[in-house]
Amino acid sequence: MQIRLPKRSFSEALAVLDRVVPTRASNVVLTQLWVEARPEGVLLRGSNGEIDLEILVPAEVDGKGVRLVPGQLLGQVVRNLPGELVEIAAEGGELLIESGSFSTRLATAPADDYPQFSFATTEMLHLPAQELARAIQRVRYAASNEDYRAIFRGVQLELHPGRLRAVASDGFRLALYDLALPLEREARLVVPARSADEIVKVLDRVEGEVALGVEGAHLSLAGDGFRLAAALMEGEFPDYERVIPGEFPLEARLAAPALRDSLKRVKVLADRNNHRVDLVFSGGGLEIVAAGDLGRGTERLEAEVPADAEMLLAYNAEYLLDALGPVAQTARLRFSGPASASVVQDEDDAGYLAVVVPLRV
Amino acid sequence: MQIRLPKRSFSEALAVLDRVVPTRASNVVLTQLWVEARPEGVLLRGSNGEIDLEILVPAEVDGKGVRLVPGQLLGQVVRNLPGELVEIAAEGGELLIESGSFSTRLATAPADDYPQFSFATTEMLHLPAQELARAIQRVRYAASNEDYRAIFRGVQLELHPGRLRAVASDGFRLALYDLALPLEREARLVVPARSADEIVKVLDRVEGEVALGVEGAHLSLAGDGFRLAAALMEGEFPDYERVIPGEFPLEARLAAPALRDSLKRVKVLADRNNHRVDLVFSGGGLEIVAAGDLGRGTERLEAEVPADAEMLLAYNAEYLLDALGPVAQTARLRFSGPASASVVQDEDDAGYLAVVVPLRV
Repeated sequence: MQIRLPKRSFSEALAVLDRVVPTRASNVVLTQLWVEARPEGVLLRGSNGEIDLEILVPAEVDGKGVRLVPGQLLGQVVRNLPGELVEIAAEGGELLIESGSFSTRLATAPADDYPQFSFATTEMLHLPAQELARAIQRVRYAASNEDYRAIFRGVQLELHPGRLRAVASDGFRLALYDLALPLEREARLVVPARSADEIVKVLDRVEGEVALGVEGAHLSLAGDGFRLAAALMEGEFPDYERVIPGEFPLEARLAAPALRDSLKRVKVLADRNNHRVDLVFSGGGLEIVAAGDLGRGTERLEAEVPADAEMLLAYNAEYLLDALGPVAQTARLRFSGPASASVVQDEDDAGYLAVVVPLRV
Repeated sequence: MQIRLPKRSFSEALAVLDRVVPTRASNVVLTQLWVEARPEGVLLRGSNGEIDLEILVPAEVDGKGVRLVPGQLLGQVVRNLPGELVEIAAEGGELLIESGSFSTRLATAPADDYPQFSFATTEMLHLPAQELARAIQRVRYAASNEDYRAIFRGVQLELHPGRLRAVASDGFRLALYDLALPLEREARLVVPARSADEIVKVLDRVEGEVALGVEGAHLSLAGDGFRLAAALMEGEFPDYERVIPGEFPLEARLAAPALRDSLKRVKVLADRNNHRVDLVFSGGGLEIVAAGDLGRGTERLEAEVPADAEMLLAYNAEYLLDALGPVAQTARLRFSGPASASVVQDEDDAGYLAVVVPLRV
């Protein structure tokens, strides 16, 4: 096999695969990258056991064949190559890679032990890649990093007639994003949050549509030049909709960037344990307040709020900042009371909704 | 006391002091920053016990007084302030800081416990600040991070008639930088490498000259708006000049950036334990070679070298890269043989000299 391709497209594909292929793994073959010469280009495959990823990079190819090479090493070699073109050839047990004045021979491993990939082949739905990425990305922060409840370490994708919803929660806060899509099926799939991150990275490179399918315990995505299969988590989220309040005695509209900046300034003075900042509505205005052992900080902010509004709400500043994160311009804050859940929405993007519970004070 | 000053200059001064003032310290008062109202501005002082730093920031000041406030906290508060002007006032036990819509009150500590600073007051030498910074910065990499020989965890500054020399070594490699200066004294001062880093950071802000003095066990530097005292290490470097070879059977001139790039490419394939790369001179050219368990990499490089040169030299790639680090354009490599020290010099800067010892092969 002989392969000739631009360094740039090769290197970009390897950068995505590098994120998946582990440096060490109990199943050693997973540290290897599958390099296959095909008539239409070089097919690269990598897996961490939870997510299988395949990328086809267009190339001039003579002959056929597969070699396994250490994944992280190949990425490092290709990133540093001096020339704009890369030539690859299999010679005995080695893969010869040449570019400009540089030449390397990498030891290869037999391809027989490489795991079968689990790409779905039937019943694929077609979705805009960027919108799917956005839906996942906007809720990802709310997923749990801890073992409190295993299912919350995933991002739930729900297919409903007419829409797709991404949801994440850690049991203390919640984020959801609804995407209007001409779907017909009903399904709930929970993808591990780390796999969800890789899915976003892969979709970032894709223009146009991706095909989504479910087969066995795997979610598959396929698009221009790539296929991906992610192992699904067992189970589904508990009924989270009941924690979203239905009535809001107080609502406010604020510039999200100004509120974020103010929270960042004031939280410096907050109690180091609970990161408490208070939102104090009174006299038609809003004051952000924090006080800890070392001092006290306050800031008055512009807000669209009823003139007779009187309410004090205490939050973990980090949670409130996270919930505001996806809101580019105007945030709509809806308060059900100082001891019950609050809702953050994006005035310019009806798909997003976050739930943050005030601290007990 | 009342102080009014631009956020920018205040924030820049605090950024330099933040690097010195520790977050935690066994002597708790060191976590505090000294804020003093003086007629000419606000005087800030911070110390980590090894390095004492004082910066005067021009400001409009009414009244006098000193307050101690938590150093890292003050830095965070000021960096995040919304306005361009900062107003500071002492009110009882608190320091009130206001800027734009934001206001904070910081708890203060009594100034009585703050340590005396050790600035030299007599016999100062005057040096160009940027050149002193350059001399220290170019040799710093060679200082030891380990306890192999305590003195090597410092950077030695030598005053000689007509020149200042900065030297660093970890016992395996050495870097020195000579600065021609109209000096008369002889002295050898060893500054802890971490203090040397802070000195470079402080000098980066200084235009023109700094005054250098030694009093007791402290080196002092003073310039426009700042004073600094660094505790010196006891002892001095052993006679390192004897490790610098006097004869070189082979010399080569190379483009330093190309050599660095090539070393970075080839070292990816090197043995993970000793990072060995070989420089192979033959037939008037140079080849860089590395081989490890996973493969082998080679690159041919342009070099000005005698046509009959034949020599193989093995190095730890990291050491050779470090030695080449300060060379912007053309490096002069001088080899005394495969088993004795090599010298790296900068064709365009005669002050720099590095010694690297080849690996035993």
